Amino acid sequence: MVSFKDPNAFSDPEDSTLVAEAKKHVEQPVEFNYTERDVILYNLGVGATEQELQWTFEGHEGFGALPTFGVIPQFPSSTGVPFDWLPNYNPAKLLHGEQYLKINGPIPERGSLINEARILEVLDKGKAAAVTTIVETRDKHTGELIFENQSTVFIRGAGGFGGKRAGKDRGPATAANVTPKRNPDAVVEEKTCPTQAALYRLSGDWNPLHIQPEFAAIGGFDRPILHGLCSMGISAKHVLKTYGPYKDIKVRFAGVVYPGETIVTEMWKEGSKVIFRVKVKERDAIALTAAAVTLVDEAAKAKL
Amino acid sequence: MVSFKDPNAFSDPEDSTLVAEAKKHVEQPVEFNYTERDVILYNLGVGATEQELQWTFEGHEGFGALPTFGVIPQFPSSTGVPFDWLPNYNPAKLLHGEQYLKINGPIPERGSLINEARILEVLDKGKAAAVTTIVETRDKHTGELIFENQSTVFIRGAGGFGGKRAGKDRGPATAANVTPKRNPDAVVEEKTCPTQAALYRLSGDWNPLHIQPEFAAIGGFDRPILHGLCSMGISAKHVLKTYGPYKDIKVRFAGVVYPGETIVTEMWKEGSKVIFRVKVKERDAIALTAAAVTLVDEAAKAKL
Repeated sequence: MVSFKDPNAFSDPEDSTLVAEAKKHVEQPVEFNYTERDVILYNLGVGATEQELQWTFEGHEGFGALPTFGVIPQFPSSTGVPFDWLPNYNPAKLLHGEQYLKINGPIPERGSLINEARILEVLDKGKAAAVTTIVETRDKHTGELIFENQSTVFIRGAGGFGGKRAGKDRGPATAANVTPKRNPDAVVEEKTCPTQAALYRLSGDWNPLHIQPEFAAIGGFDRPILHGLCSMGISAKHVLKTYGPYKDIKVRFAGVVYPGETIVTEMWKEGSKVIFRVKVKERDAIALTAAAVTLVDEAAKAKL
Repeated sequence: MVSFKDPNAFSDPEDSTLVAEAKKHVEQPVEFNYTERDVILYNLGVGATEQELQWTFEGHEGFGALPTFGVIPQFPSSTGVPFDWLPNYNPAKLLHGEQYLKINGPIPERGSLINEARILEVLDKGKAAAVTTIVETRDKHTGELIFENQSTVFIRGAGGFGGKRAGKDRGPATAANVTPKRNPDAVVEEKTCPTQAALYRLSGDWNPLHIQPEFAAIGGFDRPILHGLCSMGISAKHVLKTYGPYKDIKVRFAGVVYPGETIVTEMWKEGSKVIFRVKVKERDAIALTAAAVTLVDEAAKAKL
């Protein structure tokens, strides 16, 4: 196993010199401090309710963060990785494509975490670049790895630099998670709140795209859109409530959700995996695809 | 004018020795630090929406806290004043009776504030004690007074210590604000969210009464109740949207609101004062009475 801090940890003989150099760059660690208040704020942000005291009342014996809280501490770190070494880089042309989150152990109710970000993979898609960053999130005091995130973004107009075109198989992080042909084994619906994005953004993604109509219009949207990671959190909560805890989750962002719309999570259990996809009820439009979680092994759970 | 820090600032010849001694005690100052995030969280907690960008988007040119945010910085200070010098004191017998808030100047979007609390008045109501604390909230760096709060609590079973029975006239802080006999000049309705209390408590009042059914049952309630100061914030927002800014506000807590119920604010304009009361639509029950704001003087506003 390679060390995350080895400058050549993610080197690939197929990479162009430009990419090889960018991959060597190890970002400054970013500290993230949080308390139960931040946990509850996140949980409410992805639709946890006053009935679900394990997610909204710090005094509940089973209190804790929803697993997808794992995308929050790494967010400032992941979004801080510079892409300006790409040809014709324009941040306005950037789209969040996929997210993979691995949850390594119990999530502390409060704590100090340290995030370290690297560039993991860069693909030249011709007209676009696809860049995957990896962030390791560790407990500041114990050094224990709590979360690993892989975020893939597409930057339109930034391709043509002569790198590799196809990505490596990174297991669950890249799986296509094709939905079986049968009807879903379970479906959960949840109407989001018109204020959902206004609330979710307090967990750290302050992009005005999610609240300011003028900014959303520049992005080509009729009105502000819900954060993709918020839709992921809501549907991941549906999977959790239906099938129990999981150790990782991956989604592809395929379409937008407007705050106030109804999220429909369709789930198929395939062994230890739950494949799911997310539709918007009102527009019968796909929001998340190629999505799945790996359930915590029942045998391993019994041993605890 | 007496100095807030003078040990005899609030002395009263009618006070018993017990009360006179308690009034001399100047609490340790309590610092409150906050950012735009806390401001938005409070505003959302009292029902501001994603349409009201001046209250929910930090980048809006008119962004700021709703005036009743003024009760938030002082809360840990005010609730930290000890009452255990009262005979038969039992914190479970304590009820929030009235709140007065004076807003002295523009509310910073973020800042460090210093709160100093004192006991202002103690009344012996026979079977109960009525204690009013006063908190001055100042900008830590400039020393400028930003807010003054007066909070009156009733402690059942703690009377009979031989103090004075009737309070002093403290102007708007004690006014009866009797509603005129005519129909209200304006009425605003707002359906609260079932998660309203779960969200509001993140602004600093973590009393489980507002989220845990078992705790609410001990308090004699069917289910968790909305914070009185949250109902005040919601109705004060209605007054603000109807009549514009005010420099102080006072309410009496007369009944509870359950999260999810509809708050109806009835308003009567009487000169520079707007008298209001709050009903719960579903139960035709009174929640706030003896309530009023003093509008910012139009002439003074024109001079700015």
